[in-house]
Amino acid sequence: MSEYYVLDTNTVFDYIQRELNYFKDDVDIQCDEIGDGNLNLVFRAVDKKSNRSIIVKQSLPYVRCVGEDWPLNIKRAEIENNILEIEYKLTDGLVPKIYNFDSVMYATLMEDLSDHVIMRTGLIELNQYPRFVDHITDFMVKTLLLTSDVAMDHQEKKERVKQFINPELCDITEALVYTEPFYNAERNNIDDFMIEFMEENVWHDKEFKLEVAKLKFDFMTNAQALLHGDLHTGSIFVKEDSTKVIDPEFAFYGPISYDVGALIANLVMNYISTDSMVEDEEKREAHKEYLLDTTREVIDVFKEKFLKLFDEVVGDEMAKVPGFKEWYLENIIIDTAGVTGCEMVRRTVGLAHVKDLDDIPQLEKKAEAKKINIFMAKDFIMNRKEIKTGQDFIDIVNKYYKQEATA
Amino acid sequence: MSEYYVLDTNTVFDYIQRELNYFKDDVDIQCDEIGDGNLNLVFRAVDKKSNRSIIVKQSLPYVRCVGEDWPLNIKRAEIENNILEIEYKLTDGLVPKIYNFDSVMYATLMEDLSDHVIMRTGLIELNQYPRFVDHITDFMVKTLLLTSDVAMDHQEKKERVKQFINPELCDITEALVYTEPFYNAERNNIDDFMIEFMEENVWHDKEFKLEVAKLKFDFMTNAQALLHGDLHTGSIFVKEDSTKVIDPEFAFYGPISYDVGALIANLVMNYISTDSMVEDEEKREAHKEYLLDTTREVIDVFKEKFLKLFDEVVGDEMAKVPGFKEWYLENIIIDTAGVTGCEMVRRTVGLAHVKDLDDIPQLEKKAEAKKINIFMAKDFIMNRKEIKTGQDFIDIVNKYYKQEATA
Repeated sequence: MSEYYVLDTNTVFDYIQRELNYFKDDVDIQCDEIGDGNLNLVFRAVDKKSNRSIIVKQSLPYVRCVGEDWPLNIKRAEIENNILEIEYKLTDGLVPKIYNFDSVMYATLMEDLSDHVIMRTGLIELNQYPRFVDHITDFMVKTLLLTSDVAMDHQEKKERVKQFINPELCDITEALVYTEPFYNAERNNIDDFMIEFMEENVWHDKEFKLEVAKLKFDFMTNAQALLHGDLHTGSIFVKEDSTKVIDPEFAFYGPISYDVGALIANLVMNYISTDSMVEDEEKREAHKEYLLDTTREVIDVFKEKFLKLFDEVVGDEMAKVPGFKEWYLENIIIDTAGVTGCEMVRRTVGLAHVKDLDDIPQLEKKAEAKKINIFMAKDFIMNRKEIKTGQDFIDIVNKYYKQEATA
Repeated sequence: MSEYYVLDTNTVFDYIQRELNYFKDDVDIQCDEIGDGNLNLVFRAVDKKSNRSIIVKQSLPYVRCVGEDWPLNIKRAEIENNILEIEYKLTDGLVPKIYNFDSVMYATLMEDLSDHVIMRTGLIELNQYPRFVDHITDFMVKTLLLTSDVAMDHQEKKERVKQFINPELCDITEALVYTEPFYNAERNNIDDFMIEFMEENVWHDKEFKLEVAKLKFDFMTNAQALLHGDLHTGSIFVKEDSTKVIDPEFAFYGPISYDVGALIANLVMNYISTDSMVEDEEKREAHKEYLLDTTREVIDVFKEKFLKLFDEVVGDEMAKVPGFKEWYLENIIIDTAGVTGCEMVRRTVGLAHVKDLDDIPQLEKKAEAKKINIFMAKDFIMNRKEIKTGQDFIDIVNKYYKQEATA
């Protein structure tokens, strides 16, 4: 067959066998659709006899969570396949292994990571991941620094920029992260209790919106490194001793801060959610402490590894000038604080929320959490030039929880 | 014929007729090779009976001024053809009209501008061009602002970024403008009297080199607008009432400041040259004043037109936020001062010099002029954050000529 069709749980087994002959004789296959993302179909096929399993991810020609009214270039699957191969090599396996990519069906057969859990879910369940900081800072430093002009041949880097130009997916980010949350846009998803609050604190605050506009233009023009492009806790599979980053279909050459900031924002939002949602004081405070430690360490270990790897791989003559790497990194951290704020705003009032905040059961606590989230986001953005260390990040979080901490 | 061959004065007439049948019967054709650029062959064919004429520009598969040892992708002719068409439309004819582009021969047939003169030559001859400021600011504001994310649909802009990725030509700029002049590189072209001076004042000045490194990374990563990429006075044809920008083969999506700064630097270097070279005091001072006025006006009229057109064409919602356009423009001007300095350094000690400085006859005056050029360049770069107006630019020039001005 050489025509695209949408897979379903009935047809996916035949498809897997045709492409890869993955399962042997005498099997008892179960196929489920397990995708909970906004864009694609994801199937898991498992042979209950051997426990052998595989994932099939297929692109649809539209945005899944909206429907055919929002068409989307199906070729994004190709971008995802290409970047997963690059990231796999650069990080020595911190992304799933690809077995097969099919450019007719826009379907990827890949390693099943069902023994892992989506980090957002794990954090909401108050789990801790002792290897996470080490793995994710490795992932970021390697995928970002090694694809930048610091390390790469400049001509090859430009060919990569060209290969990963990603107009449609970037358009989604530009609209949903950097534009629509900052006015009363139709596609926003705003709780009733937030409308007046947003009017007062965001939509009429010209100074704040000016800072967001600057960050938006950095996102649109700064071809610094090959980003994952959507590095929140829903794009990371974790277990005790393993971390795997998935779903890089938003990949493009953009500012390094965009990946780091997306991650930090989602850790911070889990902190805010934990404070509102967890009744048991001991568990609550332990998890909050874990999240603060993780946030601080992600920044500080990222910085430490970044500077170390920089020295090992720097190829550009001018980047070797004393002071350059510190200047380069300092700006990344400043902009990371800016991105953190933008991601926090859009996850509160934009089209795509986070479960962490939306699942807070009591309306009053949810309202309070979301408002704190917006104030903190503004703080990250407006004061970003002062933010240089992991401690600076958690100092901003602590500002809003000081009284409880001392209580 | 469908194979590439290098044209010469004997074959170019047949080529023109084959492609375009440009000349009619009963002609008396003269063909000359008139290219004085570093990269291409340029022929002018004129029928001495009718005075009808045409230009043929052909790419060579190597850098002309170096030879076959420095191969260069011949497809740059395609980039040049594509951008000339875009610029022609955007500026209503401030570039030559293309009659034909041939993707086998990498040759372009275009409007003959022999009634114009290369601006560098005109300035060295102390000519003035009363329409130049108006035309060149029109050219810059329209080609730059209208190809940026401010004005363009963001997805279309990204397709343009992709179309104009220009690794080889950018590599030349990155090496010759932003790297090699800042150490004792083999390809540099350094007068003997400059070596010790450069050691003392540039090659060991880490703070200065750090600022150049920042500007280099802006050049490599900031996909702000579709640049000309080589907008010095040797790329501009002028006459009393007309200005035509030529040779955009370095075009790519880069920082707006790169075009504006290249132009300003070349005006300033002509000022320095005029001061050293022109014996007649009245003519010298008049031309110096003309150059200062032109420099100041290029900046101020550029700013004025930029802000006006911005309001007319701004499409991005966030770019409409009050204060954004002023912030955006202010950064362009600051970086313009930085680029001005880099261009001045590279034209003094890098591979490709300017006739303005090299042709100063007396060795002592030439040495003095080149040293002033380097000091002034450092000033532009180190103090760029304070440079906001046309007056700020000429204040820096005047600093080095104060005593003469008051004498």
